[in-house]
Amino acid sequence: MAMKQAATTAIRALSSSLISHSSPLVRQLHASAESKKIVGVFYKANEYAAMNPNFVGCVEGALGIREWLESQGHEYIVTDDKEGLDSELEKHIPDLHVLITTPFHPAYVTAERIKKAKNLQLLLTAGIGSDHVDLNAAAAAGLTVAEVTGSNVVSVAEDELMRILILVRNFLPGYHQVVNGEWNVAGIAHRAYDLEGKTIGTVGAGRIGKLLLQRLKPFNCNLLYHDRLKIDPELEKQIGAQFEEDLDAMLPKCDVLVINTPLTDKTRGLFNKERIAKCKKGVLIVNNARGAIMDTQAVVDACNSGHIGGYSGDVWNPQPAPKDHPWRYMPNQAMTPHISGTTIDAQLRYAAGIKDMLERYFKGEEFPAQNYIVKEGQLAPQYR
Amino acid sequence: MAMKQAATTAIRALSSSLISHSSPLVRQLHASAESKKIVGVFYKANEYAAMNPNFVGCVEGALGIREWLESQGHEYIVTDDKEGLDSELEKHIPDLHVLITTPFHPAYVTAERIKKAKNLQLLLTAGIGSDHVDLNAAAAAGLTVAEVTGSNVVSVAEDELMRILILVRNFLPGYHQVVNGEWNVAGIAHRAYDLEGKTIGTVGAGRIGKLLLQRLKPFNCNLLYHDRLKIDPELEKQIGAQFEEDLDAMLPKCDVLVINTPLTDKTRGLFNKERIAKCKKGVLIVNNARGAIMDTQAVVDACNSGHIGGYSGDVWNPQPAPKDHPWRYMPNQAMTPHISGTTIDAQLRYAAGIKDMLERYFKGEEFPAQNYIVKEGQLAPQYR
Repeated sequence: MAMKQAATTAIRALSSSLISHSSPLVRQLHASAESKKIVGVFYKANEYAAMNPNFVGCVEGALGIREWLESQGHEYIVTDDKEGLDSELEKHIPDLHVLITTPFHPAYVTAERIKKAKNLQLLLTAGIGSDHVDLNAAAAAGLTVAEVTGSNVVSVAEDELMRILILVRNFLPGYHQVVNGEWNVAGIAHRAYDLEGKTIGTVGAGRIGKLLLQRLKPFNCNLLYHDRLKIDPELEKQIGAQFEEDLDAMLPKCDVLVINTPLTDKTRGLFNKERIAKCKKGVLIVNNARGAIMDTQAVVDACNSGHIGGYSGDVWNPQPAPKDHPWRYMPNQAMTPHISGTTIDAQLRYAAGIKDMLERYFKGEEFPAQNYIVKEGQLAPQYR
Repeated sequence: MAMKQAATTAIRALSSSLISHSSPLVRQLHASAESKKIVGVFYKANEYAAMNPNFVGCVEGALGIREWLESQGHEYIVTDDKEGLDSELEKHIPDLHVLITTPFHPAYVTAERIKKAKNLQLLLTAGIGSDHVDLNAAAAAGLTVAEVTGSNVVSVAEDELMRILILVRNFLPGYHQVVNGEWNVAGIAHRAYDLEGKTIGTVGAGRIGKLLLQRLKPFNCNLLYHDRLKIDPELEKQIGAQFEEDLDAMLPKCDVLVINTPLTDKTRGLFNKERIAKCKKGVLIVNNARGAIMDTQAVVDACNSGHIGGYSGDVWNPQPAPKDHPWRYMPNQAMTPHISGTTIDAQLRYAAGIKDMLERYFKGEEFPAQNYIVKEGQLAPQYR
């Protein structure tokens, strides 16, 4: 036991020396050689679990890392039960070392849970988007928070393009006619358009926004983007997108708006009644970023009035969306549960990313720099 | 009256001299200066007609050419009533000179109708796809049949890409959950994929097929095409698509198949039970070409067995699809009524194309060469 402790101390010292600007708040950035208790919170697949051998993102699939973790002597608990003091998650909070969560079934990691989690060192997000974690509390407690950066980029950008087409081309009313035994071309065609020639603006041009713009390029649209920084001039020229410094100046130009910005204190409720009013009448909005960037009721009201001509996305506030969430029932919605970043392809990418980070954590190695959301008491720039 | 007849004879002679290889079968390729009776058969819009000033493709919109035609002294009758001997269309068959039809609400121009239409000279398709006309009978009768070639290319290619994404990403089960008050990510995710990296094959690489391949380019897929001829090598290289001479050799390679070939005697029933069996298990099929290219029941059976993993398209056999058409009720379908080529943008294009051809017809001028489907007793190559 004494030897084990000495080794732990040595590893801590080594880790510490590897990290510059080490904060006194950091609990323990890298693992000791001890056996760890790792808890994963994912969505349950039930009858769907066995339908696809690559379905690793669910409780049953457990990211495909159970055998590996257990062979290394670690304890690995996986659950979907995350809400309240009686939940399975809550039981393990006091002694878990690593908590793996996912935006598709978010376990809310509050300041209270962080305070209670005395052994917690590492919060990993299987996917992208860690706003279900109280990042300031995590930073203050010296925890490391990391995502599998890049794992969802292709998936979400593709999904956004699908949703743009579904809204612009007015797909759903036609589908409804089919299943209802109807045939009324006019009922679809009077508000169906080609995407070609329309003006598309993205609010945020990070990895997903940029990839969306690249995939939109051959559609011959007028492409605009708003962000804090301009895209690299070479890429901007290649895509042919135009920078809009002032969001409110971009809004009235857009036939379609796509939200591609993380949820932060600055973007929460960004699209309220006043800002939606600045959009073109009939604007189509796609939001796969976060539900809370929109004012829920303002979106409902604008869909009802027709000011928003169509709204699609896979993010809600809160998640899972309750049965009576008004976005389920507003006109011209093309919503789904939170799904775009958890295709089978994306699951394989983020499962591999989580395994890679755990491996590095066990060895006391750094993660890929772009994965850190909270490190040594500091939030990553996109969450500030 | 004598003078008018002399003028008509002179114009006929002039027209005739303009046309090389004139067939003795040609009734009258170009118009005399007389007032013409023009009949248009479109879908009725009813309450939707007034909702969009650019909604010209419906009965009420009448292609936006009524004022112009009537100011030139022509008679212009527009109806949606096309079936049977008591229909409005049938009443005008004996004395109409020009019949404008549309694939979105096809007036079937049979050999019997052609025989009865003693004054008929010109059959115009507002859109693309003239298989609702008995082209051999039209050729034998010396009629001219023309389409607005190119008017639907962008619309249909975009729509195909939308449908590919809807199937690959498993959009509809998520949408159903939303409207049914449910939330079950696993129920969607277990068969949702990214498009990136998948193999897409198009059966036919005419204008629409080529544009689809171009728009798919940035998605980093494996692109295959089957056609009678190879694409121009420059363009083929730019798109990065691979030619497949043998359709049956291409089928087992494709995750997604897109049908982009006209309906002809050779393609009718092309995808029967045997050919579908040659496809990869779980293949996703998009067909915006013509319903009759598929064996209706073979598609139903393969969707039921899971051999076809998803089927989407906007074409049916017949159209309008009856209430009990089995494609309405088969699993994993993402169908709509025939809509992709009749977006508002497409309507404006084909309305302009019809006006242009009528103008040329009145003046005794040739149409753009690519518009002819039947000319001087000959069918255009794609319909042979």
